[in-house]
Amino acid sequence: MKIAVLPGDGIGPEIVDEAVKVLKVLDLNFELESAPVGGAAYEAAGHPLPEATLNLAKAADAVLFGAVGDWKYDKLDRPLRPEQAILGLRKHLGLFANFRPAICYEQLTHASSLKPELVAGLDILIIRELTGDIYFGQPRGRRTAVDGHFPGTEEAFDTMRYSRPEIERIAHVAFQAARKRGGRVTSVDKANVLETFQFWKDVVTEVHADYPDVQLDHMYVDNAAMQLVKAPKKFDVIVTGNMFGDILSDAAAMLTGSIGMLPSASLDKNNKGLYEPSHGSAPDIAGKGIANPLATILSAAMMLRFSLNQPQAADRIESAVSAVLSAGLRTPDIWSEGTKKVGTREMGDAVVEAI
Amino acid sequence: MKIAVLPGDGIGPEIVDEAVKVLKVLDLNFELESAPVGGAAYEAAGHPLPEATLNLAKAADAVLFGAVGDWKYDKLDRPLRPEQAILGLRKHLGLFANFRPAICYEQLTHASSLKPELVAGLDILIIRELTGDIYFGQPRGRRTAVDGHFPGTEEAFDTMRYSRPEIERIAHVAFQAARKRGGRVTSVDKANVLETFQFWKDVVTEVHADYPDVQLDHMYVDNAAMQLVKAPKKFDVIVTGNMFGDILSDAAAMLTGSIGMLPSASLDKNNKGLYEPSHGSAPDIAGKGIANPLATILSAAMMLRFSLNQPQAADRIESAVSAVLSAGLRTPDIWSEGTKKVGTREMGDAVVEAI
Ligand SMILES: CC(C)[C@H](C(=O)O)[C@@H](O)C(=O)O
Ligand SMILES: CC(C)[C@H](C(=O)O)[C@@H](O)C(=O)O
Repeated sequence: MKIAVLPGDGIGPEIVDEAVKVLKVLDLNFELESAPVGGAAYEAAGHPLPEATLNLAKAADAVLFGAVGDWKYDKLDRPLRPEQAILGLRKHLGLFANFRPAICYEQLTHASSLKPELVAGLDILIIRELTGDIYFGQPRGRRTAVDGHFPGTEEAFDTMRYSRPEIERIAHVAFQAARKRGGRVTSVDKANVLETFQFWKDVVTEVHADYPDVQLDHMYVDNAAMQLVKAPKKFDVIVTGNMFGDILSDAAAMLTGSIGMLPSASLDKNNKGLYEPSHGSAPDIAGKGIANPLATILSAAMMLRFSLNQPQAADRIESAVSAVLSAGLRTPDIWSEGTKKVGTREMGDAVVEAI
Repeated sequence: MKIAVLPGDGIGPEIVDEAVKVLKVLDLNFELESAPVGGAAYEAAGHPLPEATLNLAKAADAVLFGAVGDWKYDKLDRPLRPEQAILGLRKHLGLFANFRPAICYEQLTHASSLKPELVAGLDILIIRELTGDIYFGQPRGRRTAVDGHFPGTEEAFDTMRYSRPEIERIAHVAFQAARKRGGRVTSVDKANVLETFQFWKDVVTEVHADYPDVQLDHMYVDNAAMQLVKAPKKFDVIVTGNMFGDILSDAAAMLTGSIGMLPSASLDKNNKGLYEPSHGSAPDIAGKGIANPLATILSAAMMLRFSLNQPQAADRIESAVSAVLSAGLRTPDIWSEGTKKVGTREMGDAVVEAI
């Protein structure tokens, strides 16, 4: 089994180091191979997703990804910016199903912006479609407007689109995931305004016929944003498109107060996947040794479970993380009175120790 | 001065009745004329925005709007559904600038989902562009895909677009509004993915050159959704497109805990406007006499200030609402231990009394 390790920018390398340490101690005979991605790859090879990095990711059984992006690349042309690497990987590897758990860790309830009673025990799974929608739709660009409010002026445009098979496959993923959890799916759309999401709603409803044991409801995206704030525990699985999923999954992650703890998986149709923390590259704290490596370590656990068929090893990592939290160890982002503040490396060492 | 009164569906008529009562007691010699809109208009005239209603709105100096929508119309063809009325009014009246204050009323801090220290004193103004973006972009519809992941299959699509003058005018509105407040504008985009919002960012930056006294920063929409949850008080004025504004303004309104209290204004280039509460038609509580009329009453105050040039009258309404809250009167949505629960009509009467 081969794992491509793409540390990326900002805190990416530090947190990935810790996850690699944890993987190695499991002694499972994986082959790990690293390559630069994002800004680091732009510096090294002139492109955020060099051919060699993409080929490594394609050849591997799974990809462990850190984070990409730094303000210093803001002035580059779009195709050279670090984020293009993650968009390119999703596209070229066909990673259409993004799993973003929003879990409130019992030990961290107090760290949420929300009142504790609203988030204690929170466990939502957001399933975001990741290779379609307005992220990749063509045509897009700039042109002279021929109609609209100001014909004859310069305009920019993008195309939102979803085809039937794209919606069907993500709907199946959501219903199957719900079966293993609370048995409820909320499909988030904007069918009252968008053709694309009226179609989304229709197709999700059709696919639901295969899952009579799962409860399905539909919610407009603006209402979903409100309900996440008001009563997040009412959700079980949320399934939505790429654009709405980008916004809602980040809002939900932040609500938990545990964003430094939340892993994510992006899977193709054969369960090959890319695994990365839900948080970003945090260039402001890069190199200081204070970033929380737990989201990345838990992403490695997800990788073992979803792509590498090693559920016991995944359990071992997750139990170790839980033990370390219960022992009171905290990186600064989740620290509170009465717990022990540790750095990135100490936290990784503690997880290794607990395994 | 003529005010078009469009009560609409659900709780719309009840809450608009109270706002009309308040307007009348000011004795300002307005002519008020009502017309059906939304589901009510569909029932009465077979269309959610009948010709006569649109003409009344066009002829008036301002429009006072209740709310539209009810589950019972979900099965109608899209052009006949209640929401089309509000989209049609925005479009035909050219109401491109939507003002959505997100204020946390001191007396209601405890009603927020957020911890009190995060929302006490919160006062954000979200300025949402309202006649462009993917809401109105053409072409849109269903067709057979010619490219993408599954060529040859059925797909649905929409067009996101913004022209330079559309972005310029909303940017001016935002910078001018910021001058009268905290002097800071956050422009929310998704320039890392969308051509439309790279252009948005570029044009907002250009317009900013005219406002050296205002501070401008840019934020991606996913990050904005997170920061609203994490530290909403960091914002002053947020300006964004129609789609992102729909989601963020609802999330922000819910964060305050005061959603039953939040008015909104949608203005054209001459400050003619449509005024409506930020909340919806709440069909589940319609006719029960328990809906909170204060958001609609405060919308009437906004109307007096923005469109009817009666700032003193607006002040009188706002002071009266404040007095009524301080006296402990609460509709059920904002009630808490130690305050007095009142119905829709009693609340309206109390505001009239306080004026
Ligand atoms: C970096 C950016 C292109 C990306 C996205 O919008 O998908 C990020 O926000 C994410 O959610 O992974
Ligand atoms: C009813 C709907 C079309 C509308 C919108 O999406 O603009 C509503 O959500 C709003 O924000 O006023």
